[in-house]
Amino acid sequence: MSAEIICVGTEMLLGDILNSNAQYLAQQLAQLGIPHYYQTVVGDNPERLKQVIEIAASRVQILIFTGGLGPTPDDLTCEAIANFFGAPLVEDPEVIEDIAQKFAQRGREMSPSNRKQALIPQGAKVLPNPTGTAPGIIWQPRPELTIFTFPGVPSEMYRMWEETAVPFLKSQGWGKEIIYSRSLRFWGIGESVLAEKVSAYLNLLNPTVAPYAGKGEVRLRVSAKATSAAAAEELIAPIEKQLIDIAGLDYYGADDETLASVVGKLLRASGETLSVAESCTGGGLGQMLTEISGSSDYFWGGVISYDNSVKVKLLGVNPEDLDKFGAVSATVAEQMAIGVKTRLGTTWGLSITGIAGPTGGTDTKPVGLVYVGLAGPGDEVTSFEYRFGTIRGRSLTRHVSANAALDNLRRRLLTR
Amino acid sequence: MSAEIICVGTEMLLGDILNSNAQYLAQQLAQLGIPHYYQTVVGDNPERLKQVIEIAASRVQILIFTGGLGPTPDDLTCEAIANFFGAPLVEDPEVIEDIAQKFAQRGREMSPSNRKQALIPQGAKVLPNPTGTAPGIIWQPRPELTIFTFPGVPSEMYRMWEETAVPFLKSQGWGKEIIYSRSLRFWGIGESVLAEKVSAYLNLLNPTVAPYAGKGEVRLRVSAKATSAAAAEELIAPIEKQLIDIAGLDYYGADDETLASVVGKLLRASGETLSVAESCTGGGLGQMLTEISGSSDYFWGGVISYDNSVKVKLLGVNPEDLDKFGAVSATVAEQMAIGVKTRLGTTWGLSITGIAGPTGGTDTKPVGLVYVGLAGPGDEVTSFEYRFGTIRGRSLTRHVSANAALDNLRRRLLTR
Repeated sequence: MSAEIICVGTEMLLGDILNSNAQYLAQQLAQLGIPHYYQTVVGDNPERLKQVIEIAASRVQILIFTGGLGPTPDDLTCEAIANFFGAPLVEDPEVIEDIAQKFAQRGREMSPSNRKQALIPQGAKVLPNPTGTAPGIIWQPRPELTIFTFPGVPSEMYRMWEETAVPFLKSQGWGKEIIYSRSLRFWGIGESVLAEKVSAYLNLLNPTVAPYAGKGEVRLRVSAKATSAAAAEELIAPIEKQLIDIAGLDYYGADDETLASVVGKLLRASGETLSVAESCTGGGLGQMLTEISGSSDYFWGGVISYDNSVKVKLLGVNPEDLDKFGAVSATVAEQMAIGVKTRLGTTWGLSITGIAGPTGGTDTKPVGLVYVGLAGPGDEVTSFEYRFGTIRGRSLTRHVSANAALDNLRRRLLTR
Repeated sequence: MSAEIICVGTEMLLGDILNSNAQYLAQQLAQLGIPHYYQTVVGDNPERLKQVIEIAASRVQILIFTGGLGPTPDDLTCEAIANFFGAPLVEDPEVIEDIAQKFAQRGREMSPSNRKQALIPQGAKVLPNPTGTAPGIIWQPRPELTIFTFPGVPSEMYRMWEETAVPFLKSQGWGKEIIYSRSLRFWGIGESVLAEKVSAYLNLLNPTVAPYAGKGEVRLRVSAKATSAAAAEELIAPIEKQLIDIAGLDYYGADDETLASVVGKLLRASGETLSVAESCTGGGLGQMLTEISGSSDYFWGGVISYDNSVKVKLLGVNPEDLDKFGAVSATVAEQMAIGVKTRLGTTWGLSITGIAGPTGGTDTKPVGLVYVGLAGPGDEVTSFEYRFGTIRGRSLTRHVSANAALDNLRRRLLTR
């Protein structure tokens, strides 16, 4: 038995909105252990809607619709479903009453078009909408086929899903076997290299292991099917441990952990503090670090030294070195890191200077050249050179630069 | 003739990622005037992928795939397409060469699994990927059917679409009647208030006007159907002008313009400079300003004064005022703005101090309380208080705070 998510609305075909409902429902189905292999988007068109219902009803047993339940003539979902299964639409008096009350609450009168929202296929149960006027339905038009409809407004759909659909699905026996996933995150290794290192694991059946890449990092998703989250974790834990052992320092965290949160955890554990000096990232490194609530325990702040005068004034970079080596150099990166560490009185100082592009590159200093400086306890200072090239573009080069800086600090904190 | 978007990847079925590729492609198809009635998401499974290809090839003439082109064994898109149409896969030597070069640039060696990415169905044209290793294809496996494949990584897909797919589709006669849109952007006004102000425009047929809200701002999309971008612009221009006149200062820019880019344009025009002092945004304001290439002309840098000691040391905030009024106060916001302006020697100084949450709030200073300070020429200094509440969450509260700061500077620059 498996489900299909069908999102109805011309606004998705025009690209006006992002289909976040499909993502929400996908996560929810995974948590309940309901297999789900297809998602379909179709416009507000009765003929094409009918075709989509026909295909879905032939390949899955649970159809979940969102959208097309509104009061306007182009809201067709319920009508199309009723037509396809040959059921008449009947007006539900409780729904009429509910809609009228909601309008009264807002000091408005119910318009005639809202009566349409109370038309339900004969035999279907109303799926109440506590926060809006469009109810959904739960309907078994034939044995082994269950249909849910939800409005397209995400907040309304979420509450209806949680309050009515989930209890119903659990009463049908779902939620006993769930799919539980862990996403292991890696920095400093390419997708293909990591996939080869862990190739023996990519054919496992439970848990499964699958790699994917994006924004400069690689992830391995480890997914287990089990009767409880605890049982799934038990299946995942030994595999996770082996994968982490194979990857060594290239593994940095799992799920919602970021390089910034991992560095924060390490600093908190050692009771140390950090400050940053940013040129080409312009504040992005500080932004990442402070995205974490409570980061003020170890992150004290820093200097955005975008203009060279700020590097001299606030960080004490030597103007002669700026002239001699240029702002994008190992020397200046190190002086920036020492400068911010000393002035703010933190344990560590982390700096970034580079050419994010698309302009500003030269033959000797091309776009994508980035230096990270790291100053630590005592006189410790090092720098790291990156040549990210031009292919990532300005925004991603800055993102990758900030993460590369954090990764260097992470490796340093782990290997002392 | 119409198109179907097919996104391949188990990560979408698990709800791990939002399907932003479908939205991008939907917008692009609308711009080219290519009708598009279906979107399908399917996992990395050869049997189900085959079924999806079969259904799509029977109902549309243009199939656009994203995802499943990577080097790992679960990347199956190209193979499934070739199998379905009975074409052998052949290794493309130019693609091999291109992948090897890209690895060399990054100082890495190409792994054997990357060779898989060079396997192309016989007869297909390579759709080059300038920023990644996975090329796509353009293929007519039979008359009246064209297939495109793109990698799932959005930034790679965008460039390939723009640089190769669009010119190809135009050469096939598409893009003659286009839908052309302008997105007008507003800050400081709610969606329903703006919609009421411009209600007379919401029923227009060509161009159409539709409101959207998100991330603290409201947009009006003005879309025209015409035979050329120029003709569409002619339809849009008078309506755009009227909408902007109605909105007054709440309108700030269109399309890709951001509050940061608009402020930058104003500063560049007046030959003035800006520095920032950030507490709760931790660098996010500087990050926004420097996202724009060339921002070094007017943005000199700033101080991330996350810890109070940094506010005193690097910005000269009075420690007694910090004690008396607290770090989140109008007084401290103003002193931060003056401090950074004076120390960096810029025309303007912009500061933010607030409680982004979820913790750190008190009865008198709740989560969401944010002060923006603005120091300008001479002794000019003002501050602005915001109460964003808790509903947006930490990340969005920070985003909205940084934009609110920019908006104040924008209004100041426009009204002197």
